[in-house]
Amino acid sequence: MTETILRADAMLTPGGAVVDAELAFDGDGRITYAGRARNGVAPTHDLAGHVLMPGLVNGHTHSAMTLLRGVSDDEGFMPWLAAVQALEQHLTHEDVAVGLQLAMVEMIETGTTSFADMYHWDEELIELVRAAGMRVNAALASFAPEAVGFPGVSPWNGADATAQTEALAERFAADPQIRISYGPHAPYTCPPEFLRDIAARAKERGIPIHTHVSESAAEVAQIEERYGATPAEHLDSLGLFEAEVLAAHCVHLTDGEIELLARTGTAVSHNPVSNLKLGNGIARLPEWQAAGLRVSLGTDSVASNNTLDLFEEIKTGTILHRGARQDAAVVRAADVLDIATRRGAEAVGFPEAGALEAGFLADVIALDITGSSATPFGLAADPATDPDADSAALVSHLGFAATGADVRHVFIGGRHVYADGEHLTLDAASIRVRAAAARARLSAAASSS
Amino acid sequence: MTETILRADAMLTPGGAVVDAELAFDGDGRITYAGRARNGVAPTHDLAGHVLMPGLVNGHTHSAMTLLRGVSDDEGFMPWLAAVQALEQHLTHEDVAVGLQLAMVEMIETGTTSFADMYHWDEELIELVRAAGMRVNAALASFAPEAVGFPGVSPWNGADATAQTEALAERFAADPQIRISYGPHAPYTCPPEFLRDIAARAKERGIPIHTHVSESAAEVAQIEERYGATPAEHLDSLGLFEAEVLAAHCVHLTDGEIELLARTGTAVSHNPVSNLKLGNGIARLPEWQAAGLRVSLGTDSVASNNTLDLFEEIKTGTILHRGARQDAAVVRAADVLDIATRRGAEAVGFPEAGALEAGFLADVIALDITGSSATPFGLAADPATDPDADSAALVSHLGFAATGADVRHVFIGGRHVYADGEHLTLDAASIRVRAAAARARLSAAASSS
Repeated sequence: MTETILRADAMLTPGGAVVDAELAFDGDGRITYAGRARNGVAPTHDLAGHVLMPGLVNGHTHSAMTLLRGVSDDEGFMPWLAAVQALEQHLTHEDVAVGLQLAMVEMIETGTTSFADMYHWDEELIELVRAAGMRVNAALASFAPEAVGFPGVSPWNGADATAQTEALAERFAADPQIRISYGPHAPYTCPPEFLRDIAARAKERGIPIHTHVSESAAEVAQIEERYGATPAEHLDSLGLFEAEVLAAHCVHLTDGEIELLARTGTAVSHNPVSNLKLGNGIARLPEWQAAGLRVSLGTDSVASNNTLDLFEEIKTGTILHRGARQDAAVVRAADVLDIATRRGAEAVGFPEAGALEAGFLADVIALDITGSSATPFGLAADPATDPDADSAALVSHLGFAATGADVRHVFIGGRHVYADGEHLTLDAASIRVRAAAARARLSAAASSS
Repeated sequence: MTETILRADAMLTPGGAVVDAELAFDGDGRITYAGRARNGVAPTHDLAGHVLMPGLVNGHTHSAMTLLRGVSDDEGFMPWLAAVQALEQHLTHEDVAVGLQLAMVEMIETGTTSFADMYHWDEELIELVRAAGMRVNAALASFAPEAVGFPGVSPWNGADATAQTEALAERFAADPQIRISYGPHAPYTCPPEFLRDIAARAKERGIPIHTHVSESAAEVAQIEERYGATPAEHLDSLGLFEAEVLAAHCVHLTDGEIELLARTGTAVSHNPVSNLKLGNGIARLPEWQAAGLRVSLGTDSVASNNTLDLFEEIKTGTILHRGARQDAAVVRAADVLDIATRRGAEAVGFPEAGALEAGFLADVIALDITGSSATPFGLAADPATDPDADSAALVSHLGFAATGADVRHVFIGGRHVYADGEHLTLDAASIRVRAAAARARLSAAASSS
């Protein structure tokens, strides 16, 4: 089996920065070496002027909603929701496919290699992810037929999604790129019996659950009025956290709910940009960290973001809490980078990805550091002199200055999917044209209905 | 005089989006036409796949501090300040020059055409800005010789800076690219008599003042303890607001101080990313808007940001308040774009720049909209059908999805300074090399002192 060897100016590893770095992986896409450049080893790709880091993990998105980018998002929450739903009810399977492909184009370009998604999924859509080379934890969005309070989201109903989830989970059980989850939308859209049934099935079959929890103050008030409990307490009473759960948003968790999610090993997803833009609030990341929660970082859909660039979430997810708490040490960029990579990969079900270390899967991205916003970079002239300073410089750049536009190469499980700014697995130009046409058709359908 | 004519897919004007747009300006760099493309007019630059908007205005920065990018910024405020000061005390004039040039490279690349700066300035540095083609409101940072509480910032003292400010203001009085301001650092670093003297001189000579006000809770407490007043009340008692003032940060203004600044026509600068990253808090932009304050948007220095990309500030400055107030309508992207352009230009002293409208100066940037994060864009197929929807789509893209990396062309006063990603007035490659060398020398000096 052929080994691939990357050389770069520096590399982010669990132990800190490695300067004058070398990463090697075998034909199975498994890292065999991650350290200082070795004498006498010729690199396959000499990436001078670049740094390497693990591929980013998007902990919560609805990828096909790229088609709804920028819909009515400057007038408040209700006009936005109405506009999204007016378009969404006209989505065809072909639309979902091209929206997913557009999302993968954007994710790869901005350095994301794995994503946890909740939307419409079937075998054909999963095969698009396999062809693109990405990893997905795909949750089939579901609402019980009698679902309450979420009009306009039509084609998916509970029974179908549940059966299809289980069939897909079996079909792709051995695929290292694919995990399948139940996707009950939220406690306010799924009745208790429906959630209880999914919890029992999830526990029995070992299939995880991806759901929204405590996204808005309005949701918390509604659940408390309806069930006399907070959202996480309510879900706990239905047995949900006996299964493996990924809970998105969790903006308004109480201390008791944080303790509950920590005790049950529940993974959460922090979506700072979406939570801000939609006016939902600021999740309590410092308390999550103190409680030892399993945490990932997500963009949510582009309809509420409006990009899939996780570098924005990394910066916002670091500085937001510093400002809100008036404490510049309360969240560290180094920790958020860890959440966006190693801990995120673990949270969404790919624990063998997420770190540049021998034995891990080679999900790795290379960022150009020759541009203005990377100058001066601050690595020591002699890397032996001050490894802590080199680590601080690399973390600072990746946490506060880098953006998705700096990403030039992406490897996923050793497969080169993006080379010097060119896609190797997706026809980006054609996908953009088809996505624009799909949006035009959706807009026409919405305005004539 | 030759006219220059730009064609683009759309253009942001004070009246909303113009689709299929044309912008013309004369040899004096003054806009002669801004509207729909005219039949029979051949464009000088056919920018298909681009949108036009006014050049961005950075309302508060310390540009030469690009050299201190990424210094010790993940450990809290005091270690950061100590590390910045350890390097800054070794800055030479040559360092300040190359730091300024690096900042201009980055600003132009990310679409900024004017900036309000507070640092070390002299005629040679001003000439660098003139050569680059940008507009600057340059404030000479000053502290009285007996200044309190801000160790490490050495070479600038009050008397010199005051005299030099006045000489430079006279020297460049007629230059449309240059304004000169007094730069008394802050109420906690400048004693009352020093500030009173500057206020009187500013009022007498018509030279504006650029200062920091109410950046941190610690500052407010210190000023209240020392003077028995809030920072703005204290400055008001010294007569400062009888002059034209640009007050940066203003994070902790009381209702009374907001009313004071509105009544005195004082301009403020909102720096959301810096305020968050340094743990200073969240300024009350919604109240500023309600009070009718003159507002600009700033990055602060890259040491506290770590980029000069104002598109980040536009997005953060919109969504931050929505999240903090749990109200998705409390700040609109359309308003923040206006703050970053027309209102910002007015606030920093270039009222004839900042809008794409006949009679204004041609400070205009072109952004590529063929990429993934601009797809689908959402303009109507036929621009006659729904101009409001077209405006909403353009504002949404510029407010929530665009980044500095999308900027491809920059014209300032009609001068083409950045063409299809290439600098026409600055030798970017050489500047980056010199900046990296300067930083290495500063680091060596700091660690051996």
